Amino acid sequence: MEITEFFELSIGRWRSQRSGHHLAFAHFEQVLSDIDIESVSSDDPAVLAICQLYDTDPASITHPFRMSWKGESDWDDKPISGTTVLVPIPDIENPSRGKLLRDKGYAETIPAVAKYHLSDDGIFTLLTEYELAAAEERIWFATPNLRFRVATIKTSDGKGVTTASFSSEIRSLSNSTS
Amino acid sequence: MEITEFFELSIGRWRSQRSGHHLAFAHFEQVLSDIDIESVSSDDPAVLAICQLYDTDPASITHPFRMSWKGESDWDDKPISGTTVLVPIPDIENPSRGKLLRDKGYAETIPAVAKYHLSDDGIFTLLTEYELAAAEERIWFATPNLRFRVATIKTSDGKGVTTASFSSEIRSLSNSTS
Repeated sequence: MEITEFFELSIGRWRSQRSGHHLAFAHFEQVLSDIDIESVSSDDPAVLAICQLYDTDPASITHPFRMSWKGESDWDDKPISGTTVLVPIPDIENPSRGKLLRDKGYAETIPAVAKYHLSDDGIFTLLTEYELAAAEERIWFATPNLRFRVATIKTSDGKGVTTASFSSEIRSLSNSTS
Repeated sequence: MEITEFFELSIGRWRSQRSGHHLAFAHFEQVLSDIDIESVSSDDPAVLAICQLYDTDPASITHPFRMSWKGESDWDDKPISGTTVLVPIPDIENPSRGKLLRDKGYAETIPAVAKYHLSDDGIFTLLTEYELAAAEERIWFATPNLRFRVATIKTSDGKGVTTASFSSEIRSLSNSTS
């Protein structure tokens, strides 16, 4: 799989079933959510603002997208929701690697630059380093309509893993609706 | 990571936290178990019997091991337990690939030959084809003492995925106790 295909297959609405493992306590968390991944134009104001924030040439980016999610956890009554715009910048020499800019990180509120690569096996790995923690996500397609995602939160020295989660994401709307 | 290191790191006792996703119903299953992975001698009678069953030269095998598990699911009152001996046969031309013989498959009772490979990312993928289904497992180490495993059961044509599960496995005893 090429990275372009990976980004294009990701576009759509996904019904996500997520299990969180809090490792120290062997505790399980269950989350059901809808995730929308929409393609965004390269000259969208949100994309240009991110390019400016990271001092990045808009000509160097590819496949920017908006990700929105809305869900419920069995740990908390409050619904979980959010939205973020993400901007991939492929490595010129090796397009299966690159950086991913976003307007808001997951674990803390400062904008974070993540590094990605796509393996020969079609596994997209995303590494994000925050001030106090690091997040690693591995995403791959079992079929074009079923995506898996394993996310881990590590301490910033990379040695301890505090939580891990697994998501099964089933496509619920075709790409043409976005 | 070399495949030899992968097999050797796997030896030990693991405390496993597993979430099963039954995709059609978005149902969650929770399983807690202990998994013991012990190194077995290449001339152990169980290993020789497996070699004979598959008409395999015992000189071609590497790192045979016994896996035993005992756990409880929130779906069922009956405890889950079992044991199986597994025998890797590396591909002579490419040792990061090979076959894995076992005395009993997971999904059905006939002995199954699985194919494995270890990616550049250190992800061990195991494919097992049964008569009516196919199982794919992806296993990797987050740290030497934390292993992740994603298992999927597919229909035998490989197109539909019926269940997926995610296990976090934390080492609970050192290798020297086996």
